[in-house]
Amino acid sequence: MFDWTIPDEWSIRDAWIKNAAGERVVDFREHNLHVLGYSEPFQGRLSAEDLKAHCYTLPDHPDRIPYRTSYYKRQWGFCLTQHQYDALTEPEYDVCIDSTLGPGVLDYAQCVVPGATSDEVIVSAHVCHPSLANDNLSGITLAMQLARALTDIETRYTYRFIFAPGTIGAIAWLSEHQAQAKERVRHGLILACVGDTAPFTYKQSRRGDAPVDRAASLVLGLHAEGSTIKPFSPYGYDERQYCSPGFDLPVGCFMRSGPGGYPEYHTSGDNLGLLRPHALGESFTNALRIFEALEGDGTYLNTNPHCEPQLGKRGLYSAVGGRTDTRAVEMAMLWVLNYSDGGNSLIDIALRAQLPFAAIRAAADALLDAGLLVAAE
Amino acid sequence: MFDWTIPDEWSIRDAWIKNAAGERVVDFREHNLHVLGYSEPFQGRLSAEDLKAHCYTLPDHPDRIPYRTSYYKRQWGFCLTQHQYDALTEPEYDVCIDSTLGPGVLDYAQCVVPGATSDEVIVSAHVCHPSLANDNLSGITLAMQLARALTDIETRYTYRFIFAPGTIGAIAWLSEHQAQAKERVRHGLILACVGDTAPFTYKQSRRGDAPVDRAASLVLGLHAEGSTIKPFSPYGYDERQYCSPGFDLPVGCFMRSGPGGYPEYHTSGDNLGLLRPHALGESFTNALRIFEALEGDGTYLNTNPHCEPQLGKRGLYSAVGGRTDTRAVEMAMLWVLNYSDGGNSLIDIALRAQLPFAAIRAAADALLDAGLLVAAE
Amino acid sequence: MFDWTIPDEWSIRDAWIKNAAGERVVDFREHNLHVLGYSEPFQGRLSAEDLKAHCYTLPDHPDRIPYRTSYYKRQWGFCLTQHQYDALTEPEYDVCIDSTLGPGVLDYAQCVVPGATSDEVIVSAHVCHPSLANDNLSGITLAMQLARALTDIETRYTYRFIFAPGTIGAIAWLSEHQAQAKERVRHGLILACVGDTAPFTYKQSRRGDAPVDRAASLVLGLHAEGSTIKPFSPYGYDERQYCSPGFDLPVGCFMRSGPGGYPEYHTSGDNLGLLRPHALGESFTNALRIFEALEGDGTYLNTNPHCEPQLGKRGLYSAVGGRTDTRAVEMAMLWVLNYSDGGNSLIDIALRAQLPFAAIRAAADALLDAGLLVAAE
Repeated sequence: MFDWTIPDEWSIRDAWIKNAAGERVVDFREHNLHVLGYSEPFQGRLSAEDLKAHCYTLPDHPDRIPYRTSYYKRQWGFCLTQHQYDALTEPEYDVCIDSTLGPGVLDYAQCVVPGATSDEVIVSAHVCHPSLANDNLSGITLAMQLARALTDIETRYTYRFIFAPGTIGAIAWLSEHQAQAKERVRHGLILACVGDTAPFTYKQSRRGDAPVDRAASLVLGLHAEGSTIKPFSPYGYDERQYCSPGFDLPVGCFMRSGPGGYPEYHTSGDNLGLLRPHALGESFTNALRIFEALEGDGTYLNTNPHCEPQLGKRGLYSAVGGRTDTRAVEMAMLWVLNYSDGGNSLIDIALRAQLPFAAIRAAADALLDAGLLVAAE
Repeated sequence: MFDWTIPDEWSIRDAWIKNAAGERVVDFREHNLHVLGYSEPFQGRLSAEDLKAHCYTLPDHPDRIPYRTSYYKRQWGFCLTQHQYDALTEPEYDVCIDSTLGPGVLDYAQCVVPGATSDEVIVSAHVCHPSLANDNLSGITLAMQLARALTDIETRYTYRFIFAPGTIGAIAWLSEHQAQAKERVRHGLILACVGDTAPFTYKQSRRGDAPVDRAASLVLGLHAEGSTIKPFSPYGYDERQYCSPGFDLPVGCFMRSGPGGYPEYHTSGDNLGLLRPHALGESFTNALRIFEALEGDGTYLNTNPHCEPQLGKRGLYSAVGGRTDTRAVEMAMLWVLNYSDGGNSLIDIALRAQLPFAAIRAAADALLDAGLLVAAE
Repeated sequence: MFDWTIPDEWSIRDAWIKNAAGERVVDFREHNLHVLGYSEPFQGRLSAEDLKAHCYTLPDHPDRIPYRTSYYKRQWGFCLTQHQYDALTEPEYDVCIDSTLGPGVLDYAQCVVPGATSDEVIVSAHVCHPSLANDNLSGITLAMQLARALTDIETRYTYRFIFAPGTIGAIAWLSEHQAQAKERVRHGLILACVGDTAPFTYKQSRRGDAPVDRAASLVLGLHAEGSTIKPFSPYGYDERQYCSPGFDLPVGCFMRSGPGGYPEYHTSGDNLGLLRPHALGESFTNALRIFEALEGDGTYLNTNPHCEPQLGKRGLYSAVGGRTDTRAVEMAMLWVLNYSDGGNSLIDIALRAQLPFAAIRAAADALLDAGLLVAAE
């Protein structure tokens, strides 16, 4: 699988640290973050000192369990709160990690919402973080709601939702869909950390000016005050793989706070209490707006390029002149007419005009109906 | 005429609203804004309620008469102050609009100041706003003064001043001069709202980097603190037509406050009281500076491109070295020499150096005289 | 010598102004700035008024002697403090300038530190300012220390240090090394005013985006807070000659305060008291960092461009995942892998990543060792 070998499949049934009284002082059944992800099986009695060498804590946040993994080095360990760690005052502990590592499968899920063409928009969310809410139950949830919403409408593009473990899952998918990825994927979004109340952050694809990048700039610029557009960097979520130079797919990353961007990140503090329904709702609305722009984008030619056409005689322009409140739709028509020279798509025009894509699309439709616009070849 | 049909010619002789006592409570002879522009003729007695359906006011500025027109929908109406409107308390009024609509001509005026070549600079001002001062008696006045000033000097370009009604007039001119516009027009300026005391605003041509755009940036940047350079947008004055994609002429718009940019815009408040002689004077000076840069622009080659030439032996450089107040003319010569590689015009060099165009032009002349510069082919 | 003739060689042995009592009231032996540079010989008795026509002072800084020269106009003069000038109250003075002007040579020094290739980095410092410390004993000193440091290490480039009088010396060098300059010089730095405590200023080469320009931006941006990057201008030090359009060499100017940028500039106040050892040391360190980036730059190809390679199995990636303190070296490897597509050099990648060049170079070396990178052709 490219440069990678899928590691053995890991299953975990139980894990605990017991004190001399036989009480579980750390218990996997209480929180599944308590086990270092991918821990090999272990059972035995250890001195407190030896045990602590296998423990991970967050001294600065003594109430939180850290999220730690060791996929590629065989070891075992526990993640616990600093308070739990400090309470390991007995000389010895019984320790058990009841896990198995062996042949298995790398699972990922796909949900395909067919559109009029086989050109694809891919939407990808990582599913490998146990019990973490913003990172990334929120992304999974948003992807599901978007899939549901797109099922109800007719779309130009086929939407492929990919739910896979981070890194290895995206690499597996790309490995198994290499030709398809290069030939069919027109646009894409990674969804992550979309449930908290931070302003939006859109991280551009490696290309920086792909239609999805321009659509995201437009939507967040007009509809989500305080949003940030960041250039691509080769660290973060699975854009690392989709935007590797051999693929260089036009896939951006749609987030609110983003990786490392909030104190609860990668700890037991990233739980449902961090999510807000209205924040998830805004994420849903703005992601749909980006899709709306991608769906409705197109490049047209003004059939009447010498001076403005007379919109009024076609019922497209206000009858009373001199007003200072020219309607947005009239402005949108003037923008579309002036810049429909074959070199600007509707997303480009909306960005220039700083008008919502829907207004530009509606203007283009009115002008197409009036014969003042034709599709550019 | 491209997509347009010139509408019937409108003449207005008189108009009034009379009360039961036969007194004119609204009187066209008092202010010609009182009639909705292009009103069809009407005579009759109406209930106050029916009359008010034909009235336009500005509730937020109860002392001002709005400027309203209806060129392309046949109707009649009155524009009045909110106070006049509120005083229409009698049950009925006699109403008269003594206008005619019929075959006629669309007039526009041109004033051509010939230059050494048939390459043209067009200067355009709209003339369709009755009784409005800043928008656009100021533009008409400035155009006239510029024409007068250019008559007295020898110019490279032929200057064509166009005085025409907004939109329809510019469209008519372009329709009747289509080939000439495309072949001869090298630069152009729309003049509007140039008599108030707002800082200058220059709106770029659709090209964005035409010589007139760069000349205006240079002049306003150096000589008019607080000026704003705005990108093209397909709304405003007749740049809408000159910069339509079929023409895409290098025509910018030279303004102070601009359309909609002051509270009196399109009302009876836009009267001579709004204009200031020194503001008109500054507009004149800066417009001439833009023309000066366009006239004097050129691209040259440094005949001595390896190291600096020795300016001192030619009397072009200060004899005493070590001073910190190097003369601007020496700096200008160094800029012209270094960047006269065929790829930069004098306007480009002035922009880089942030030196007045006159200083750069004087430096180039001195260097040409000394044989250190030749015209690039 | 291009457009220039080397003037006669000037030697100065003594100079003074004596009062009636025969006392030297201005004495070249006390400060060599007291003579107008390149003064022709003169001896005689003058009225105070006639003498003062030959005197240069700084009324705003009455304690400082100005630095003035007259290379290309034969004259004589004295530079004195305003206090000395004001004390010239006797009716007559005896004056002597014991100088000679005659055939001679224009000397400049070169120090060449050979590297693995004959491609050259030139480092140039002007040596014509008598007794001035920051401008430019500091540049001379820094050049010497850099030459010494480079002698001790193996370099790719041959480093040529040029010590020459400003303007005429650089012109002489370029005149005598014209082909070499065009064929061999890959990068270059002018060093001047590097001993004061002002933040760094790097003035770009005329090209603006030469590797040395990008290396300087990287180094000063990351390692020298408050630094300024200025675009090229055809005034300043000998970049005026190296960057004349016929040569257009990739030579920038590395300074702290720069010409005219401090009150003591070109006066007797620019003495050793203005220099600070730690400031010179920082200049040394950052100049070396620029050379380090130029030496280590290169363009590579990721041999595994589809998705990330598995760094962990090669020991290049941390074993425990989930941490938020990803090591800089891992980040650097991800940047190098993603952007090593043949279109970005390591300096480009370091600028994108905003990581020290050394980290990017170390990452590239690790990836080359692992076979994950090859040199681009």
